[in-house]
Amino acid sequence: MRIALDAMGGDHAPHHPVAAALQALDRFPSIEKVILVGDEDRLRTELTTHRREPDERLHLYHASQVIEMTDGAVEAVRRKKDSSLVRAIDLVKEGAADAIVSAGHTGALVAASTIKLRNLPGVDRAGIAAILPSATGVFVLIDAGGNVDARPEHLRDFAIMGSIFCKHIIRRPSPKVGLLSNGTEESKGNELTRQTLPLLKKAPLDFLGYVEGHSLFEGNTDVVVCDGFVGNIVLKCCEDLARSTFGWLKEELSRNPLRIAGAFMARGAFRAVKKRTSADEYGGALILGVNGICVKAHGSSSVLAIVNALRVASEAIDLGVNTKIVAEIAQTELLSRT
Amino acid sequence: MRIALDAMGGDHAPHHPVAAALQALDRFPSIEKVILVGDEDRLRTELTTHRREPDERLHLYHASQVIEMTDGAVEAVRRKKDSSLVRAIDLVKEGAADAIVSAGHTGALVAASTIKLRNLPGVDRAGIAAILPSATGVFVLIDAGGNVDARPEHLRDFAIMGSIFCKHIIRRPSPKVGLLSNGTEESKGNELTRQTLPLLKKAPLDFLGYVEGHSLFEGNTDVVVCDGFVGNIVLKCCEDLARSTFGWLKEELSRNPLRIAGAFMARGAFRAVKKRTSADEYGGALILGVNGICVKAHGSSSVLAIVNALRVASEAIDLGVNTKIVAEIAQTELLSRT
Repeated sequence: MRIALDAMGGDHAPHHPVAAALQALDRFPSIEKVILVGDEDRLRTELTTHRREPDERLHLYHASQVIEMTDGAVEAVRRKKDSSLVRAIDLVKEGAADAIVSAGHTGALVAASTIKLRNLPGVDRAGIAAILPSATGVFVLIDAGGNVDARPEHLRDFAIMGSIFCKHIIRRPSPKVGLLSNGTEESKGNELTRQTLPLLKKAPLDFLGYVEGHSLFEGNTDVVVCDGFVGNIVLKCCEDLARSTFGWLKEELSRNPLRIAGAFMARGAFRAVKKRTSADEYGGALILGVNGICVKAHGSSSVLAIVNALRVASEAIDLGVNTKIVAEIAQTELLSRT
Repeated sequence: MRIALDAMGGDHAPHHPVAAALQALDRFPSIEKVILVGDEDRLRTELTTHRREPDERLHLYHASQVIEMTDGAVEAVRRKKDSSLVRAIDLVKEGAADAIVSAGHTGALVAASTIKLRNLPGVDRAGIAAILPSATGVFVLIDAGGNVDARPEHLRDFAIMGSIFCKHIIRRPSPKVGLLSNGTEESKGNELTRQTLPLLKKAPLDFLGYVEGHSLFEGNTDVVVCDGFVGNIVLKCCEDLARSTFGWLKEELSRNPLRIAGAFMARGAFRAVKKRTSADEYGGALILGVNGICVKAHGSSSVLAIVNALRVASEAIDLGVNTKIVAEIAQTELLSRT
């Protein structure tokens, strides 16, 4: 398989994407080729710091523009036709790559993949499926920021796509799906969730009903469904709180020699929990519902995060996630008509 | 001042509320009287375990019913007229108490206070102001779950009320206000936040614009404004993540003798951070916008949490928070007409 990597996307581009491409090629033999898309001169310079040159598994593809975080999503896609992000999507569209990975502008990636690759048959809106840690492993949050204003049918499609993603990529045979709300009772919820509830009850899902913020990390729900506005806020709040908590702990642990010694002795425990709560470990979110494999890595992605995003892309290709989504959505449409 | 305490509200009622009332009376001399509202027999029995009897600072007020967490909010208020929560609100309405504190049903408390006490002049909807930890101290999240479907003018009122609360109760001379969104750029946001943005720009606030989940805990924003659906989810997710992180840390720290010894030596640091991230320390959220002081403590409140809720109630009375809200809202109305 061949993966197009937006080498200019993210806060540490092209440094981190280039390093990640080299590591991923070493670690994952199933990736036949990574195509680094971006300013060719800068990419060549970056490669020389690794004493590497392009070869048959590592291609360069020149793109003269970069989409900035301050650009409007749709406008950027229309205006910056020669940007690394748009060119990488073009490669997927033309069949020159099987997937795209980008740590760039989320909105632009969703817009470009929707405009250029189109949605899968039967899917009205693409949603971002992010992976978060839980007490029993991980859970999927969908939509983590693809669509800010969603309709009930969109949430139903997110639930179905998230469930397939969870079944095949995270390997849970029968994923439990919950609709994120402000309480578990059916009297709770807002207008959108109240209209979504009956649709999810009818869908071919193991549907738990409403789940609330208090039970996200307990591990009882495998797929948490919400609109992209709520999902994006939840995702970012949790990342920020995890980071802040470790910052506060570090501050407290360095207050006196006894604590410093204790922290040193227990350092393995901190590393383990930090790893568990770190966004980098989960390697990027999948944009589900578009006709192509698109993985969004975090804007501030480390090298490890982009390596993991490349891994997720290769698994999604291997497992034919999109074919499974099309089949399941078609079945649901048939069911809802009968 | 006299505070009515819903002694049957919360997961550990009447045990925790009764113990909290006794501690608060000891610690806060400005509280002249706590009125325990609930099943009189059970409250007397509970008091005997503390070897106490009602006295001039500790009154009992009988209420035969209890609002359960599964009850519908408005229906419960209408039907369970002799519930501890409704009776405690009645005491405020009749002027027999200056504030109510409850760890019971949030929706019912918002409904009862809105129906019985009415909103403050100029305020259309009440909002829940919760206090959360940040790198520099704390910040206010409003609305943390009062209204699930809000309009732009409601968010504007929440911003003004939250700012006053922050100025007087948390003592920040000029609170910085942010509107919670999925990104800081003005192109981000959903329909509600996009309509709210111009209203907040015109309001007499130190308004920062959009703030996103990534920067909540950094401490740059003093008041974070959102609708109650989003606010409730954010609040509960953060509480759950903080709790889960400490659970995971405990698990890892007990894996081998070296880690156990290290954890013991550094135990002061864990306690400090746990205290900082614990909901119990912040003592309950204020329902702002109703014509009375209403403090909501967490459903699973510890004794300490309810003691802190009683403290917040006494401070809100002392500082005349509601008078200040009425004056500020009136000024904003005048401004928006000119």
